[in-house]
Amino acid sequence: MQTEIVARQARAMGERGLDAIISCSPENFAYATGFVVPSQPLIRHRHAMCIVTADGATALFGVDMEQSTMRRQQPDVPIRIWAEFSDDPMLVLADQLKDLGLERANIAIELDYLPAIDFMRLTQALPDATFSAAEDILARLRQLKIPEEIDLLRRLSRISDKAIHDALAAVDEGDSEMDIAGHLTRNVFSLGAEHFKLLIVATGERSVLPNVGPSERILRRGDVCRVEIFSVISGYHAGVCRTAVVGEAPRHAEPIWAHLVECKYEIMEKVKPGASCREIYDSFITKLSKMDLPPISFVGHGIGLHLHENPYLGLAPVLGQPGADAEIEENMVLGFEPLCYDTGHGFGMQNKEMLLVTADGSELLSDYSNTDKLIVCGSAR
Amino acid sequence: MQTEIVARQARAMGERGLDAIISCSPENFAYATGFVVPSQPLIRHRHAMCIVTADGATALFGVDMEQSTMRRQQPDVPIRIWAEFSDDPMLVLADQLKDLGLERANIAIELDYLPAIDFMRLTQALPDATFSAAEDILARLRQLKIPEEIDLLRRLSRISDKAIHDALAAVDEGDSEMDIAGHLTRNVFSLGAEHFKLLIVATGERSVLPNVGPSERILRRGDVCRVEIFSVISGYHAGVCRTAVVGEAPRHAEPIWAHLVECKYEIMEKVKPGASCREIYDSFITKLSKMDLPPISFVGHGIGLHLHENPYLGLAPVLGQPGADAEIEENMVLGFEPLCYDTGHGFGMQNKEMLLVTADGSELLSDYSNTDKLIVCGSAR
Repeated sequence: MQTEIVARQARAMGERGLDAIISCSPENFAYATGFVVPSQPLIRHRHAMCIVTADGATALFGVDMEQSTMRRQQPDVPIRIWAEFSDDPMLVLADQLKDLGLERANIAIELDYLPAIDFMRLTQALPDATFSAAEDILARLRQLKIPEEIDLLRRLSRISDKAIHDALAAVDEGDSEMDIAGHLTRNVFSLGAEHFKLLIVATGERSVLPNVGPSERILRRGDVCRVEIFSVISGYHAGVCRTAVVGEAPRHAEPIWAHLVECKYEIMEKVKPGASCREIYDSFITKLSKMDLPPISFVGHGIGLHLHENPYLGLAPVLGQPGADAEIEENMVLGFEPLCYDTGHGFGMQNKEMLLVTADGSELLSDYSNTDKLIVCGSAR
Repeated sequence: MQTEIVARQARAMGERGLDAIISCSPENFAYATGFVVPSQPLIRHRHAMCIVTADGATALFGVDMEQSTMRRQQPDVPIRIWAEFSDDPMLVLADQLKDLGLERANIAIELDYLPAIDFMRLTQALPDATFSAAEDILARLRQLKIPEEIDLLRRLSRISDKAIHDALAAVDEGDSEMDIAGHLTRNVFSLGAEHFKLLIVATGERSVLPNVGPSERILRRGDVCRVEIFSVISGYHAGVCRTAVVGEAPRHAEPIWAHLVECKYEIMEKVKPGASCREIYDSFITKLSKMDLPPISFVGHGIGLHLHENPYLGLAPVLGQPGADAEIEENMVLGFEPLCYDTGHGFGMQNKEMLLVTADGSELLSDYSNTDKLIVCGSAR
């Protein structure tokens, strides 16, 4: 899988006159290497980087305590190790870049990840090199998934979907949000994920809050439950959200849900190569407004090694280009989520799905649960 | 709790001639405010900051989609909101700083967190302000915990400890590492944690790898199991690791474990106000070497809002000061971990504990499991 990804990076360098791309964020390190250095996302100063040069060669840079794990993952790739408690990592990196013949090179590095102080040290240590931002180049490459990435995202989508479905089936009135979280996280691991992120369990009056984790709140009859999770394998994410009710739906919930379900099918119908991201978003917002539901700033986004990637089905993320649009392309994978955090009736509702763009349309990857009607908790009890 | 923490920041500014400290990392934002902005640690570009000025006032800076959550947490603190898809956050921040009278101020900001590109934009937008690094000031303040922080870390330590204990009691030969992970994560939530980090499940031949998550590996009789988790509430962490055996201990495991247990008690005995971090570390390494176990670069570290904080019981982390030492002080909370990742016999062993420094000694916070002997899996079956 990494052979093709590294080759794409080398081609991108050729087009831009670059000599090297240095991936230093956890997601782009994983993109170039196929694995995550376990403590890098957790302990910021433990820099791990992958240097890809214009000839398509790779070299790794990592901290001493992760050396055994990195070597085990890529025994054949040269690796430079820095000592956590005695080296300035940027000086070691500068030496490695010199040894790779990059002392006067044209180097792209992730300026939206590398901390300011490290960038200052690196540029001081390599005054003759020219540094530019790598993030947009890598983000563009990551938009178009290769078959192995698609297979992994399909697998992850089903893990998230089934994990939530089974957790909601296992709880009922009198259980707590913590019980939902417990079932859900156990399911995610037993279904084969390595990790998860952004666990959202928001029930009853808490269902209006966008990104809250579980609390001790006890489920009551008539509650709406918003439950979301991103399953993770090798740094890749698939996020799914489902909305359920305890016992019975509160007033207004069913017609709003039916409306959001219509939105889901309309979006799936519209997503195809050549479609305008902005048009899909605008038509969703127009449809939301017909039920007096408040607008949201996006209804979908690319997904893969980061929770949110370009393109957005929404207001353009490109700074300084508020009217910019993006075109849907084959092999993009999108998370999309017709939702209303605050319906005005004391509850929020959300359906988050994973969608692959195929040659002539789209394929729903999160296809385990039937979301045409509101899920009712406790079906497995 | 935040009143005292903000007052400490104001005092630190007075001593250094600073006009403001801007906390921009998730951990220092939580330190100044008492809460975590849910998506900040996950989506890097969603900047959230807390500005504390020398007069002890605070102001918040956050992204539009987290506005409702931030207002709910701190309804009385002024907040400036930037729009995710149409604003350059650094220009909005610069405006906020101008409105706070900080256009020509002496400002400390976290240069080891703020990405290089954002720092460039911020300094361009506020050319008359002087920026310096905030990270060392905040790290020093965070070393000495206030009573509410200690209470929270005590509660978290017991959650982690009991969650692992009960997970190991629930599994046996034939179960998988994923089963351990499933029990463990369910326990963490049902015991009241909001979140967890760095789940390590390393059994059998995988027990030699430092930071690996669970795999599908099936437990076999004679396996050593290293299981670790950090429970998290409001951004605070408590990490505990336990080592267990399946059925019976393999050859060499019991004497090595007994030696590591002796190390645990010796470290607890030595940790007290005024003790030298380096001496504690050196005596641990000397003791390890008596059993021909390989040295590790630290046997403990401060813990709280980050997994690893100063001081280290180990090689000093201060760049350029390889011989530097630090002194143990009252109200520090340390994670300490007598361990050997690779015993040379095909397995690794680790005990990770949470320890409070009291006025005249130390108090073990992770005091649920009895680790004097190796834990045997399956005791609850």
